[in-house]
Amino acid sequence: MTLAGVKALTFDVFGTVVDWRSSIIREGEAFGKARGLGVDWAAFADRWRAMYQPAMEEVRSGRRPWTKLDALHRESLDKLVGEFGIKGASDADLDELNRAWHRLDPWSDSVPGLTRLKRKYVLATLSNGNVALMVNMAKRAGLPWDAILGAEVTGHYKPQPACYLGTAALLGLEPGECALVAAHNGDLAAASALGFKTAFVTRPTEHGPGQTKDLTAARDWNVVARDFFDLADQLGC
Amino acid sequence: MTLAGVKALTFDVFGTVVDWRSSIIREGEAFGKARGLGVDWAAFADRWRAMYQPAMEEVRSGRRPWTKLDALHRESLDKLVGEFGIKGASDADLDELNRAWHRLDPWSDSVPGLTRLKRKYVLATLSNGNVALMVNMAKRAGLPWDAILGAEVTGHYKPQPACYLGTAALLGLEPGECALVAAHNGDLAAASALGFKTAFVTRPTEHGPGQTKDLTAARDWNVVARDFFDLADQLGC
Repeated sequence: MTLAGVKALTFDVFGTVVDWRSSIIREGEAFGKARGLGVDWAAFADRWRAMYQPAMEEVRSGRRPWTKLDALHRESLDKLVGEFGIKGASDADLDELNRAWHRLDPWSDSVPGLTRLKRKYVLATLSNGNVALMVNMAKRAGLPWDAILGAEVTGHYKPQPACYLGTAALLGLEPGECALVAAHNGDLAAASALGFKTAFVTRPTEHGPGQTKDLTAARDWNVVARDFFDLADQLGC
Repeated sequence: MTLAGVKALTFDVFGTVVDWRSSIIREGEAFGKARGLGVDWAAFADRWRAMYQPAMEEVRSGRRPWTKLDALHRESLDKLVGEFGIKGASDADLDELNRAWHRLDPWSDSVPGLTRLKRKYVLATLSNGNVALMVNMAKRAGLPWDAILGAEVTGHYKPQPACYLGTAALLGLEPGECALVAAHNGDLAAASALGFKTAFVTRPTEHGPGQTKDLTAARDWNVVARDFFDLADQLGC
């Protein structure tokens, strides 16, 4: 079998399960329309996401204590307000816009694919998103997780080993009994180095029409799938 | 409304959602039958459960570091093997019997009641059971949790305040936006003192036919319900 011995599929979420870019653009457009703002929301979404890794790096490096992703997103948003000349938004308005990350839409194959995979495997998030973000997203989108794990409950952001290993430990499993499902070769490389099995799923428009990164599997991962339907097919679900 | 402002229902699980006693008796009988053991499995179940609070107290008191419930159950089981004269069981056999706690059956109203409640509320476990135990139990029984929280992810056993407050914080909610659903007045009292709303559900046979404890609500909790159907009715779900 392709993933022999694997009991849990653990998932990267932003990009792999949900289309963060289109969703943030949608949320931004609604926010801007209500306020008559002329903002390039695609550029805004890309810029917000570009601030994600540097913000987490402050925590990973130990330069600041554990801070959940909602708070990091909110700090980044404060900077974007200046950069994009967004006027007249209250703190409450910005809090609400920040919660756009709780309202990301899944790729069309995500919910039906996960539903099939859930019959055979424990499905857990292994995301840098905080628990409330993941719970609210799942509730709205219908993502059928068995458990919300990853960064906040382990106190470590990916790709720090403790995030992957802590998630496996919470599931009561050895790393080799877990597979990481991700659209990002770097995430899979970090998990693989710790003994996780790996499943690459292509998301060629995560970063929009001009995407150049993660278009193909960089290594011979245990599974390489076009989408979650193909993943379910390959895993006999 | 009965629970105005509440966004998440958090649940005690052992006794409130699942019938641990009948399930442990069932598991014990199967274990004993396969080995020709003459054990009073009801007494065995009660004794195992009686070792639960003292075992957790070692952790709550700080006398030992964080230890998950699976490990505490396993240590208690080692003592029971001697007390009940169980012979010829290997470590692997006892590990398997210990996982009986992952295979507890829900009360008959639990799954349909939770399914109704889930339409309106975030449903999270707020149990002393560890994550793997709760995930495996939910998977087998069909319990539709949105999140598995409580003791292990907060690093504190109930009734320590950090277990309740940490669970609310992980949900991104104030204590007053959470209700604890429990069949135990003591658990509700601890949660209430921290600002949680409270819902008492009667489970008059949790401890078997001779139960004397928690037969009625000791205080005027926000909701007092006969079972999860009644709870869903009262909450308009």
